[in-house]
Amino acid sequence: MQDILDDITAELLAREDRGTVAQYIPELATVDAQQFGISVALADGRTFSAGSASTLFSVQSISKVFTLTIALGKLGDAVWSRVGREPSGDPFNSIVQLEHENGKPRNPFINAGAIAIVDAIMMGHQPRETLAEILQFVRFIANDSSIGIDETVARSELKTGDRNASLAHFMASFGRLKHPVDKVLGTYFHHCSISMTCEQLAQAGLFLVADGVNPSTGVRVVSAQRARRINSLMMMCGHYDGSGEFAYRVGLPGKSGVGGGILAIAPGKGSIAVWSPGLDHIGNSKLGTEALEMLVHKTGWSVFGH
Amino acid sequence: MQDILDDITAELLAREDRGTVAQYIPELATVDAQQFGISVALADGRTFSAGSASTLFSVQSISKVFTLTIALGKLGDAVWSRVGREPSGDPFNSIVQLEHENGKPRNPFINAGAIAIVDAIMMGHQPRETLAEILQFVRFIANDSSIGIDETVARSELKTGDRNASLAHFMASFGRLKHPVDKVLGTYFHHCSISMTCEQLAQAGLFLVADGVNPSTGVRVVSAQRARRINSLMMMCGHYDGSGEFAYRVGLPGKSGVGGGILAIAPGKGSIAVWSPGLDHIGNSKLGTEALEMLVHKTGWSVFGH
Amino acid sequence: MQDILDDITAELLAREDRGTVAQYIPELATVDAQQFGISVALADGRTFSAGSASTLFSVQSISKVFTLTIALGKLGDAVWSRVGREPSGDPFNSIVQLEHENGKPRNPFINAGAIAIVDAIMMGHQPRETLAEILQFVRFIANDSSIGIDETVARSELKTGDRNASLAHFMASFGRLKHPVDKVLGTYFHHCSISMTCEQLAQAGLFLVADGVNPSTGVRVVSAQRARRINSLMMMCGHYDGSGEFAYRVGLPGKSGVGGGILAIAPGKGSIAVWSPGLDHIGNSKLGTEALEMLVHKTGWSVFGH
Amino acid sequence: MQDILDDITAELLAREDRGTVAQYIPELATVDAQQFGISVALADGRTFSAGSASTLFSVQSISKVFTLTIALGKLGDAVWSRVGREPSGDPFNSIVQLEHENGKPRNPFINAGAIAIVDAIMMGHQPRETLAEILQFVRFIANDSSIGIDETVARSELKTGDRNASLAHFMASFGRLKHPVDKVLGTYFHHCSISMTCEQLAQAGLFLVADGVNPSTGVRVVSAQRARRINSLMMMCGHYDGSGEFAYRVGLPGKSGVGGGILAIAPGKGSIAVWSPGLDHIGNSKLGTEALEMLVHKTGWSVFGH
Repeated sequence: MQDILDDITAELLAREDRGTVAQYIPELATVDAQQFGISVALADGRTFSAGSASTLFSVQSISKVFTLTIALGKLGDAVWSRVGREPSGDPFNSIVQLEHENGKPRNPFINAGAIAIVDAIMMGHQPRETLAEILQFVRFIANDSSIGIDETVARSELKTGDRNASLAHFMASFGRLKHPVDKVLGTYFHHCSISMTCEQLAQAGLFLVADGVNPSTGVRVVSAQRARRINSLMMMCGHYDGSGEFAYRVGLPGKSGVGGGILAIAPGKGSIAVWSPGLDHIGNSKLGTEALEMLVHKTGWSVFGH
Repeated sequence: MQDILDDITAELLAREDRGTVAQYIPELATVDAQQFGISVALADGRTFSAGSASTLFSVQSISKVFTLTIALGKLGDAVWSRVGREPSGDPFNSIVQLEHENGKPRNPFINAGAIAIVDAIMMGHQPRETLAEILQFVRFIANDSSIGIDETVARSELKTGDRNASLAHFMASFGRLKHPVDKVLGTYFHHCSISMTCEQLAQAGLFLVADGVNPSTGVRVVSAQRARRINSLMMMCGHYDGSGEFAYRVGLPGKSGVGGGILAIAPGKGSIAVWSPGLDHIGNSKLGTEALEMLVHKTGWSVFGH
Repeated sequence: MQDILDDITAELLAREDRGTVAQYIPELATVDAQQFGISVALADGRTFSAGSASTLFSVQSISKVFTLTIALGKLGDAVWSRVGREPSGDPFNSIVQLEHENGKPRNPFINAGAIAIVDAIMMGHQPRETLAEILQFVRFIANDSSIGIDETVARSELKTGDRNASLAHFMASFGRLKHPVDKVLGTYFHHCSISMTCEQLAQAGLFLVADGVNPSTGVRVVSAQRARRINSLMMMCGHYDGSGEFAYRVGLPGKSGVGGGILAIAPGKGSIAVWSPGLDHIGNSKLGTEALEMLVHKTGWSVFGH
Repeated sequence: MQDILDDITAELLAREDRGTVAQYIPELATVDAQQFGISVALADGRTFSAGSASTLFSVQSISKVFTLTIALGKLGDAVWSRVGREPSGDPFNSIVQLEHENGKPRNPFINAGAIAIVDAIMMGHQPRETLAEILQFVRFIANDSSIGIDETVARSELKTGDRNASLAHFMASFGRLKHPVDKVLGTYFHHCSISMTCEQLAQAGLFLVADGVNPSTGVRVVSAQRARRINSLMMMCGHYDGSGEFAYRVGLPGKSGVGGGILAIAPGKGSIAVWSPGLDHIGNSKLGTEALEMLVHKTGWSVFGH
């Protein structure tokens, strides 16, 4: 595995076309596009890394996997009255589907859906408390109490977050948010600004590899059925309107973030975190996707073969 | 496995709510909704069946898996200039996406996409020749030369096929069909009218279980990579705007047909064909989906767990 | 008036940018873009013309005004169960609105709406009979029995009419057409291929100037209320998604055709027919619109001033 | 004219079906639906009224006519880089069109367009200053310095204005607003909350009757061409997706408000203000529209006849 990761890293670091770093969040636009890191946490507890795997980056939408998990724990199937579970076929920040479907987001991984999920887990609490709860959960599943939020990124998002504010107010106009829009948005932007390394992120995904139990710690996080269901949502909706492409090329459940990270789950095999800030035209990490494609090719981990 | 199938069949035959038989194709509307059949072809060559597994039914859209496979064989990646590979988020017969995207269907499994695929494999031939080629391929992968087309169903579809005619003419107006619309539609309607039993259909899916090789015959049908890719498309797009729901509940690549059949693939494990004519509101077999959900629960075959 | 028309003609004939002749109907694409004609029929019976006002051109969508008038005569308000009377905000050949509104066209002047109107006036008759009826009506209101259909244009449209065929089949799939799609389309394409001169067309519009009575003949064509209502539809929907622009610049009810003709009505003042084959990007005659803008500026005929 | 208005008022006050008072702005929902008022200001300076013509009501979207007029005065044709001038075919608060057209509203009378117009006239000033300017203009054209804003309504709107906040943030995300969203919205909600009587509103519309000059005062407000153009926009877009219906039934340029008021312009004849709080399903005053239909029938003022 270490050889595989080293080979991938060497090959990708030589690439000239690395995509484009997200521009719409000023603080993210300053990140050096030349970086690449990858970390694989195996079901047996071993971990392999290459490149800048211990550099912190902004996980952004990958945090949606964690808040969905929390929401399912708190609300159970009632989550599905707040969001659907179908691919939307639209970009991550589209509002058209909301208008056609009474303000109910198609799935928890488009921005509107993640905002609705954040609202769902607030349950009357303040942003500070909700964020503490989210951080606590992420630290728990990653088994690392040092994970935190990058306030500079959060403030940067808040200042330029008109599109998300539009989505939130739109849902609110249908009575779909139970807390004030500004508080939901504040929580949303902050939880997107969690900083993690590839190593931490790969650990955090392990419970989805092993049917709900973190094999490193032996602690059950969710039921086996719920782990499979979260994986199905990552497969179907984890890369917005590039989810079909990701399934076709990589063949694993995965969730990308605009910070350039991707968390991919090979059930029974391992949890893979990859990071490279350059994005493709849909907003998914360009080299990150390529790294996963190479990794799956070399390991045969696609869920679509055996 | 036989016990599992018997249990599922017994339980489902007792169900009162069996969904609604498709009404828009007159010939299909006459089918007895009380029927249920299931067949599982294992990777090791053994086959198990229960219920009406040897009753012929109209495979309808399941045939799209076969034409996609043929198209990939004939055109390779050039197929993707004709159709995309993303879920559309829209119903099977929607035309909105076509107008917004210059007449290019989102994927090969929505009706427009399947029509475009049929046009792609015609390559200047007549409908009769193309249908012969499709039938030959289906007989080959199912290892059963008795498989044929139900002309009564085909004629019934042709007479009520205005929506598909609209899709075809719409694509033609963008120059996306290379053959006359009536010939493409004639071929399309006939290939949807292939009749198969659950036993035959499960056999036909086996090459997708074993990385492209039919384990019963040892013959390679497609490359391992292509088999995985076809599976990924079935997972992402095989149940129209119910694909997310199917992934969530069943967790296998699958393709449904409006005749009430579903073909599901458990990579490395088995090929499952299930049939019950009653449909849910999206147009997928109601009991068929439930049967697969039960089967996966009992076998642990979901691709999202291990 | 003659001076006004001469001035306009002189000025416009000197223009270099004349727009683009419609390309999608091969027979129309061969028309010489350099031509310009204008004719004004006053409410008092006098007629003034300039340029190529006695050259025949294909009226195309202007014929929709005549079929709507016939339909209102035959069906009365029942017409509005077949089509709406709102601007669609979409291009003339859009199908999106149809899918969102159960196959009912927004208004009688978009293509789908005009096809529905043709179906409505067929009333069980054959295309030949319906076309004879339409021609008879146009000859009657223009007081000119020489008006006919250009068969070459009709055949040219039929061959390239996939978009309209798509619209027709789409409506048929909602049960909105009462006659076979091919017969409705045949009638539709032929009635679009009526050839008229500016002089004839200006005469044909006179009944809309004088509250339903043709002032040249004294014969009542429709009631005063119906004339006003037809004018309102021309104002709101007569130029597709350029209707607002036409109202803003010209300020008269008008209907354009892709052949480059426009019929505009100045209630109480006159009926204006203008023709120049070059179109703007929306599909309305470029010089024709400018001519009307100049005419209204010089005459003060806008309905929005006094 | 007095007899006409008395007859209309008597007939309408007897109606049982008065539509539904707007519910989404709490303060408006409390208005008594039984009220009806009408006022006609003739081009010759005489004014006739009936019913509750001197009762104050919230003009709401009718104020969009005034801000458009101000914007055209300040920016001239540059206004059209901020908003289009086509009917949208969508409801007043739709956001779909914005996503498809890069955040540029179709016209100045849908909510998004009016918000963009308010932003355009702010020109760096504070809400308070902009509102003072708007009020000053309305008082000027109505020749009545007592006109003011109902703060209770404005606050009520602000509290429940999520849909408009969504529209504003959406445009802001495309860089289409030059001022902070909250300031633009504050100004927007306040200027919608101008209270006027039918008598005042009829006066305020007079400059559009007489080619830009208020015939009561002899003062030119806008050029004749601009008056005609504003009228054209009221005709095409003044009643949202009910504009075609209004043109068909009434045949005058008009602008409705969700408070139940309608301002209609009969060029050269008179300015009509009507008010009745009950709305039809599109959001336009039900009895108000009927009153205008009756008035035009009795006076022959439709712009589509003579």
